[in-house]
Amino acid sequence: MNENIIYGRNPVMEAITSGHEIEKLYVSKTAKGNISKIIKAARDKNIIVSTTDNATLDKLSGYNNHQGVLASCSVYKYFELEDILNYAEEKNEKPLILLLDGITDTHNLGAIIRSAEAFSVHGIVIPKRRAVGVNSTVVKTSAGATEYIKVAKVSNINNAINVLKKQGVWIVGSSVNAKTDFRDVDYTLPIAIVIGSEGEGMSKLVKKNCDYITKIPMLGHMNSLNASVAASLFIYEAIRQRNSKA
Amino acid sequence: MNENIIYGRNPVMEAITSGHEIEKLYVSKTAKGNISKIIKAARDKNIIVSTTDNATLDKLSGYNNHQGVLASCSVYKYFELEDILNYAEEKNEKPLILLLDGITDTHNLGAIIRSAEAFSVHGIVIPKRRAVGVNSTVVKTSAGATEYIKVAKVSNINNAINVLKKQGVWIVGSSVNAKTDFRDVDYTLPIAIVIGSEGEGMSKLVKKNCDYITKIPMLGHMNSLNASVAASLFIYEAIRQRNSKA
Repeated sequence: MNENIIYGRNPVMEAITSGHEIEKLYVSKTAKGNISKIIKAARDKNIIVSTTDNATLDKLSGYNNHQGVLASCSVYKYFELEDILNYAEEKNEKPLILLLDGITDTHNLGAIIRSAEAFSVHGIVIPKRRAVGVNSTVVKTSAGATEYIKVAKVSNINNAINVLKKQGVWIVGSSVNAKTDFRDVDYTLPIAIVIGSEGEGMSKLVKKNCDYITKIPMLGHMNSLNASVAASLFIYEAIRQRNSKA
Repeated sequence: MNENIIYGRNPVMEAITSGHEIEKLYVSKTAKGNISKIIKAARDKNIIVSTTDNATLDKLSGYNNHQGVLASCSVYKYFELEDILNYAEEKNEKPLILLLDGITDTHNLGAIIRSAEAFSVHGIVIPKRRAVGVNSTVVKTSAGATEYIKVAKVSNINNAINVLKKQGVWIVGSSVNAKTDFRDVDYTLPIAIVIGSEGEGMSKLVKKNCDYITKIPMLGHMNSLNASVAASLFIYEAIRQRNSKA
């Protein structure tokens, strides 16, 4: 386990109540006593609680006395969606945001963050569940770009989409079945680009919430690209348009 | 170890002489007897020979009786550089080729192969040494694109560059220190794009052999991209130019 780890009932409770950024709370299924208080405190803070066995906790804690509870802490301090919007406004630019709908591969997330930073995207939005967070492998794969980019972790991507829409941001999705060429979108508008998960693409509801669904035109047998490559082509095209119209 | 493995003196000798595609020959440093004949046969076929200890051979062979020698076989049947050039000619297209100067990450090679196939690059050239080959992880990461793309494995990238130059192919390198924007190259000419290794970029001699050295213009703190992203942007730009001029 690469993350920062806190274990033991008092240290974990302390970490939760002090507002420490916690990725996940692991609780032994056989733990008893005041563990329910810790779980409640975590749920109140929207921390994901995962029930597991003692063997897993033993391993995660490095075989220390975890007392049936362990918290994996973030190596990255996340931003809020508002921070990303404010940042675009400060720079006097139309927002250009990436929404990642379930990227699970650390290499992909790292490469996406690296490209997003290299091309000055204002921020990246990732979901809390069923997706990889900015862990130490991602920090490494991003070649240090996590130092400079704003990543917001949200409970629900569709809520984030609604917030963005209210701010006048257009939502551009990607799908192998789309008919619209991704270059036919006007990226000089306020834009959020949605990249679906590696296996499944965008989820149904997210797809429904998109203003445009587009595809990257391909010529070979493959009908899709690696997620980090697809994200990078979208960003590149958006920046190309913005710079040529500037 | 994911590769196909052949071990034991007779089976390995048989595999070498029958022309089986072998990635690497592993020989125990304490092996005696007719092992030198096997090494000679391997060297005659330009197979890389790696001297190692018995513990490694034990592990690679799954703790079987390897008799001090083991061959890891390719899961991919490589093509020749000529096959790639012929393929472009058959399609009546100017060659568009990728030269990978030392990509060592399987995820990157897989993603590059996937992009190259998706955008109908004629082939990819990789070096035999100090680079990852098309192993089973690469096959998986490529999402099956290895089935459709021609990858040639060469002893020396600079020799391959010279062959390509004689065929009228222009060599376009990439470097973070370059001044030329990568979009200022005319990709409707016969082109080979060189992508350097993840850590070091292009080697000195390869750089010297390039007709153009270009960079992808960036805006953020990062001055380089993930190798598979960089390769994909080059390919994408080349195909964009070719299709708009067609």
